Amino acid sequence: MSEARYSYSGIDPLLHVPARLSIVTALYANPKGLSFVELRELCELSDGNLSRHLKKLEGEAVVLVEKDFVDRLPRTTVAMTGDGRERFERYVEQLRAIVDAEAVAPRPRRRRAPGDPGRLGFVAGEE
Amino acid sequence: MSEARYSYSGIDPLLHVPARLSIVTALYANPKGLSFVELRELCELSDGNLSRHLKKLEGEAVVLVEKDFVDRLPRTTVAMTGDGRERFERYVEQLRAIVDAEAVAPRPRRRRAPGDPGRLGFVAGEE
Repeated sequence: MSEARYSYSGIDPLLHVPARLSIVTALYANPKGLSFVELRELCELSDGNLSRHLKKLEGEAVVLVEKDFVDRLPRTTVAMTGDGRERFERYVEQLRAIVDAEAVAPRPRRRRAPGDPGRLGFVAGEE
Repeated sequence: MSEARYSYSGIDPLLHVPARLSIVTALYANPKGLSFVELRELCELSDGNLSRHLKKLEGEAVVLVEKDFVDRLPRTTVAMTGDGRERFERYVEQLRAIVDAEAVAPRPRRRRAPGDPGRLGFVAGEE
């Protein structure tokens, strides 16, 4: 057993917070950007929460927040930056490494080879 | 676009904290339990940090902490409870849902069907 093999201290703390993960996933899926209102609905966040997290994400250049006027009404549009997209992709790879770790035994009935009893002491015949 | 499709408010906050995720992954992989010292090395946590997170996990019945003596020296052994294992499995499924989400485009070069350009505006020939 190698040392520190379960250290997850490298997980990106900015993106790991569920509310922010929610925001960046929505923006990643919508490269042209979303309005504040759309984002609020998609992520099920309050105005205050969304503002607070956007400020944090903007501060680290993950998103770009633009304000303009449409029919004299203020509109806020949020889009992910190129750096933000790359950072999110790295974060997703970190999550993937966790869920794909051998120890976590992803869906053994599908991925385990026939005859391989697995490493986690699953009861034989359990599946 | 359905509303709130990117809401991740349901992510288990107890297990989502990287240090605790680290602890439960190590314990999940070692169903017979680990000593405090093994856990500390595997997770690369300080004594104080590990103690604090174990207390939290014990408080929610995710782990069981046992103290005994070996050659008159105190030994602490930690193991995951059955409920803890199930809770961890549910959490991993939550993470999997995030990384497998269509929007996040998991490793398009491997999983995307030939000829499918994908939905995220990847530049043609980028891969």
